[in-house]
Amino acid sequence: MTGNTFGKAFSLRTFGESHGKGLGGIIEGCPAGIVLDFDKIQTELNRRKPGQSNIVTQRKEEDEVVFYSGIFEGKTTGTPIGFLIHNKDEKSKDYDHIKETYRPSHADYVYDKKYGFRDYRGGGRSSARETVCRVVAGAIAKQIIPNIRFTAYVSGVGELQLNSTYKELDFSQIEQNKVRCPDTQMASEMETYIKQIRKEGDTVGGIVSCVIENVPIGLGEPVFDKLHAELGKAMLSINAVKGFEYGSGFEGAKMKGSTHNDLYNTDGTTQQNYSGGIQGGISNGMDIYFKVAFKPVATLMQSQKSITKDHKETTVEGKGRHDPCVVPRAVPIVENMAAIVIADFFLRNKLIV
Amino acid sequence: MTGNTFGKAFSLRTFGESHGKGLGGIIEGCPAGIVLDFDKIQTELNRRKPGQSNIVTQRKEEDEVVFYSGIFEGKTTGTPIGFLIHNKDEKSKDYDHIKETYRPSHADYVYDKKYGFRDYRGGGRSSARETVCRVVAGAIAKQIIPNIRFTAYVSGVGELQLNSTYKELDFSQIEQNKVRCPDTQMASEMETYIKQIRKEGDTVGGIVSCVIENVPIGLGEPVFDKLHAELGKAMLSINAVKGFEYGSGFEGAKMKGSTHNDLYNTDGTTQQNYSGGIQGGISNGMDIYFKVAFKPVATLMQSQKSITKDHKETTVEGKGRHDPCVVPRAVPIVENMAAIVIADFFLRNKLIV
Amino acid sequence: MTGNTFGKAFSLRTFGESHGKGLGGIIEGCPAGIVLDFDKIQTELNRRKPGQSNIVTQRKEEDEVVFYSGIFEGKTTGTPIGFLIHNKDEKSKDYDHIKETYRPSHADYVYDKKYGFRDYRGGGRSSARETVCRVVAGAIAKQIIPNIRFTAYVSGVGELQLNSTYKELDFSQIEQNKVRCPDTQMASEMETYIKQIRKEGDTVGGIVSCVIENVPIGLGEPVFDKLHAELGKAMLSINAVKGFEYGSGFEGAKMKGSTHNDLYNTDGTTQQNYSGGIQGGISNGMDIYFKVAFKPVATLMQSQKSITKDHKETTVEGKGRHDPCVVPRAVPIVENMAAIVIADFFLRNKLIV
Amino acid sequence: MTGNTFGKAFSLRTFGESHGKGLGGIIEGCPAGIVLDFDKIQTELNRRKPGQSNIVTQRKEEDEVVFYSGIFEGKTTGTPIGFLIHNKDEKSKDYDHIKETYRPSHADYVYDKKYGFRDYRGGGRSSARETVCRVVAGAIAKQIIPNIRFTAYVSGVGELQLNSTYKELDFSQIEQNKVRCPDTQMASEMETYIKQIRKEGDTVGGIVSCVIENVPIGLGEPVFDKLHAELGKAMLSINAVKGFEYGSGFEGAKMKGSTHNDLYNTDGTTQQNYSGGIQGGISNGMDIYFKVAFKPVATLMQSQKSITKDHKETTVEGKGRHDPCVVPRAVPIVENMAAIVIADFFLRNKLIV
Repeated sequence: MTGNTFGKAFSLRTFGESHGKGLGGIIEGCPAGIVLDFDKIQTELNRRKPGQSNIVTQRKEEDEVVFYSGIFEGKTTGTPIGFLIHNKDEKSKDYDHIKETYRPSHADYVYDKKYGFRDYRGGGRSSARETVCRVVAGAIAKQIIPNIRFTAYVSGVGELQLNSTYKELDFSQIEQNKVRCPDTQMASEMETYIKQIRKEGDTVGGIVSCVIENVPIGLGEPVFDKLHAELGKAMLSINAVKGFEYGSGFEGAKMKGSTHNDLYNTDGTTQQNYSGGIQGGISNGMDIYFKVAFKPVATLMQSQKSITKDHKETTVEGKGRHDPCVVPRAVPIVENMAAIVIADFFLRNKLIV
Repeated sequence: MTGNTFGKAFSLRTFGESHGKGLGGIIEGCPAGIVLDFDKIQTELNRRKPGQSNIVTQRKEEDEVVFYSGIFEGKTTGTPIGFLIHNKDEKSKDYDHIKETYRPSHADYVYDKKYGFRDYRGGGRSSARETVCRVVAGAIAKQIIPNIRFTAYVSGVGELQLNSTYKELDFSQIEQNKVRCPDTQMASEMETYIKQIRKEGDTVGGIVSCVIENVPIGLGEPVFDKLHAELGKAMLSINAVKGFEYGSGFEGAKMKGSTHNDLYNTDGTTQQNYSGGIQGGISNGMDIYFKVAFKPVATLMQSQKSITKDHKETTVEGKGRHDPCVVPRAVPIVENMAAIVIADFFLRNKLIV
Repeated sequence: MTGNTFGKAFSLRTFGESHGKGLGGIIEGCPAGIVLDFDKIQTELNRRKPGQSNIVTQRKEEDEVVFYSGIFEGKTTGTPIGFLIHNKDEKSKDYDHIKETYRPSHADYVYDKKYGFRDYRGGGRSSARETVCRVVAGAIAKQIIPNIRFTAYVSGVGELQLNSTYKELDFSQIEQNKVRCPDTQMASEMETYIKQIRKEGDTVGGIVSCVIENVPIGLGEPVFDKLHAELGKAMLSINAVKGFEYGSGFEGAKMKGSTHNDLYNTDGTTQQNYSGGIQGGISNGMDIYFKVAFKPVATLMQSQKSITKDHKETTVEGKGRHDPCVVPRAVPIVENMAAIVIADFFLRNKLIV
Repeated sequence: MTGNTFGKAFSLRTFGESHGKGLGGIIEGCPAGIVLDFDKIQTELNRRKPGQSNIVTQRKEEDEVVFYSGIFEGKTTGTPIGFLIHNKDEKSKDYDHIKETYRPSHADYVYDKKYGFRDYRGGGRSSARETVCRVVAGAIAKQIIPNIRFTAYVSGVGELQLNSTYKELDFSQIEQNKVRCPDTQMASEMETYIKQIRKEGDTVGGIVSCVIENVPIGLGEPVFDKLHAELGKAMLSINAVKGFEYGSGFEGAKMKGSTHNDLYNTDGTTQQNYSGGIQGGISNGMDIYFKVAFKPVATLMQSQKSITKDHKETTVEGKGRHDPCVVPRAVPIVENMAAIVIADFFLRNKLIV
């Protein structure tokens, strides 16, 4: 009821605050007998971790995951997978200045109102550090469905917007630059822009696009748990996300049916794919693609007006090390949350026949 | 696991196909002792029902709800509320032409692939008629939280887009026109446009905007069940929806933090509201507002190429009575799904203290 | 959260009070493509219905089930199965005398305390009439797993206890007598005894035993959802049940390990079956057997002291038509609840490999 | 779906095998602001731990719990409580002899059949060591509802059965002897008997009784989640449990209604309490009491015939340190599982009004 569990057949429950002893989770429902590739899990964590380049936060967190159960002799046993990521770089004194202050557009104020008090160190449970557990679970989810390919990339940073469709892009370039934008020219502009934003002590929002290829037909449930509804929830549950659209998205709302309808080829594929690979909430075998909008990070390296717990005026300024733009590190989070959703539906589909 | 249940503390499970005997649902978790206003429930159903004006489908469905349980002497008893809406206008012969044919951008094809066969009459379970049950539940949800005001309206039909913010609009005008657009000038243009689209045998997409006012601080759960994540899922689970954004939405992704951050007033309200009334997944007491993108209805009154079950080429043309644009009738669906989400979080909040 | 839903993969949510318009339910998770035998469903309902013999209540309820959805051309579609049983014999005036009175060992008092008021007609939601929905769902569950055989029977009425093991009994006799006891001599004694009890205006408790044969190895989950834990919950959720034991049960608590351990045959079967077909919460392919204890029905046809809503002394005496002993009619309820549990685990097992 | 989660409003998910790195869990739904008494938690763990006396297993496990989250400055924050108990005494070589052998009445065989293989060290996930996590969660649950008193005790070891009702017993004696039987004379006999059983290399079953005092009226849900149904499931989910009865239990099945009905006093209490404090699934404010039957431990220190993975005949004999009788250590497990159930219903009750 308190919303720390995601998924039904493949299900992740997480715990942990950014400045406690550690974060972790329990995965229920991973099938038995999967030979896990632990390097792949660590690779995903490394893509998410702070300090990987000079356009993201310079915090050093190693983010090593320790598995406690559910794996025996390298294979999943079908029992719950418990895991832990220790917090090693706990500079909670970085946060003493916000103990009594509500940072604008953070969750400080609402936590105090909801729970009566809060763990003020680094945002506590509302910290984006919580997503590290999602990446672990997603990296395992991917190994349940190894034939399905998840590719996320940055398609917007502030006003810099990539206008190409995903078909026109060279995905092999994504991990070749710090921004994780497959268009190298655009990536370079974005990088320059982010550096400038950081110099200003400011932050900027962005867009992550994601494509899921080689999806079997039939995933998704027809009413409340439509495939895109769960994907949407998964994405909107990531810190800083403000919007989600799939297939034709908001542009589709401007179109006529005679243009928008995806006509069939005789093999069951469609000529266009405005549907975004999903019809009636169920995958149709075409590529699934969607976009996720991230707001600018709320922590600024400049002074802002705010209020104290006692509702007095004050000012607050970010300390420590923060991302000027969250989207490069959000790429693996988006991908791995998508993998959790698809693995869950993949398993749920076994129940229907 | 098959996704016909929505909500946790206040929870709706639905059943029913568009051309079976009827549709219905069971609401679990409605608190005891609420004196229900049945007229309000019927009013919501009337706002959703077909045939209300000449810009929506001309099907006549009375959509009278019969309650079977959970209510005694006009009050909720705390036990499950079972309800039924009989299907009265079951012209299933209207659908004989699609028995062997997959309509483009409908769910026919994926149902056959997922389940092995399908109820082909009127889309079966994938029909938007399923939303009638959501409206019943939403109309009850609203009565659990009578002080919270839900207002949805049409803000876009095809290229016709309302650019005013919700603060500039006169909500009292919404129900005064067939389109349910609060700007009467725009409403008139939209109406004309929809009529033209219908004449062409075509359809067009649109946008529904929604505002939730007078929300208590503290609703929503911090991680997976963020308030906007559940709202997003609720909206994306409505037929034909392609996108969801709240607060600054996709525009927010272009902004800088120094602009986007909502600075506090000393009373805890904020000067702007780019956050859309939600911070860290939890309501902050400011208005919640969001937009929902609907694709054009897939059933056209014109001939389209398609394929048969045997993967032969064929053509298909809509028969019966269909909406040229779904958004006017989607307005109460959006509102009532929002009410279900908020009532659920309102109840869940009782558990935390 | 209000506990009107049972099962995870195969899941039943019910509604309905004994003297409202009707009772019904929604089954989620029934796989697609099952050709339903409706006669079998009605047969189960007939076994449960009142008025079938002179040792059970003489109320006449036809208990015809109407299916609203989820079935097309005789086959399940994989979408939710909504069903309704109308209440036809609603003599709610039979209950006017208890409007202001709390019947001893009924739920009247606790309902008023929990919910603030209650539907006092016939026990409302706490009536055993609620179990009619379970029988419908169980009768469908059985058709998902047609090879598994469920056999319940009466093994005790008051002090009359059947001492034979189930292996020594002739199950074909169960439906040949009114008591549903497979030992015809004992059945006759029980029948005589129940008639005498009824004459006294009294009631008596009893035991239902149940055997599940031909269960595949591997059903059940190892920790909280052990097969016998779910079976136990299922049985304990039936009205009037006071105890549950499986395999060696309470007698097993007196035994030594050297006697109790079930030694293996080389084919994996065991020489005895004190385990009751379940080891570590998981079926081992041997017969599952268990016993369910039912208390005497609380409604007596004799005057008893009680209290009013205002906590004044009063007397209360049963009116209408009630069972002197509930176990003959409980036999199909036990069987069908067992079928729901086993079907649920049968489906859940598909997720693990 | 794999059944490693228990509870709805107060919910525990666990992980861990007996010979992996550790066991742990995540509690969701613990309300915010509770000042936790950590000594009480450790005391409960100490009551359960091996090696506390010479009638239980001599394994040394310290069972220290480490909390990772959800607690800040000594108080619960309302976010999930993650905890871990490291396995320190991992002599997995003790189990090499069962790598290829199925121990009688253990879960070895069914695990192999269900999952395809198993973690054979110490029973893996099916080890009773898993209950250590339940004790942690129960010890926290008790602190949510400090006014409710949970008292379990041993009332039977083999044929030695305590015939007194709980009212006749002196609960202060329970922790004064190794058996945890409040009757000191009987405790002494039981202790002697258990020592003799151990000398024989055998094991013996037993009964744990439990009483819950000072329960508010109104806990429990009327249909599937009856208070006693959840209690029953909770108990039956504990390793080695074969039966559950509450109130009059199996004896109640022999009684007449005129004897069994609990007549009211004018204050709403009842003169007797055959109902066991629960009517219609809902607590009535009287004491809740129930019995739990435990089979003899399956691991014997004597040679038994068995089979190998290849279905060859073999013999197996227990190695390492095992309990000759499980009930003394089961006492805190029963109590703490009861506390989880009651705390869950206590919270769920907040939703209904």
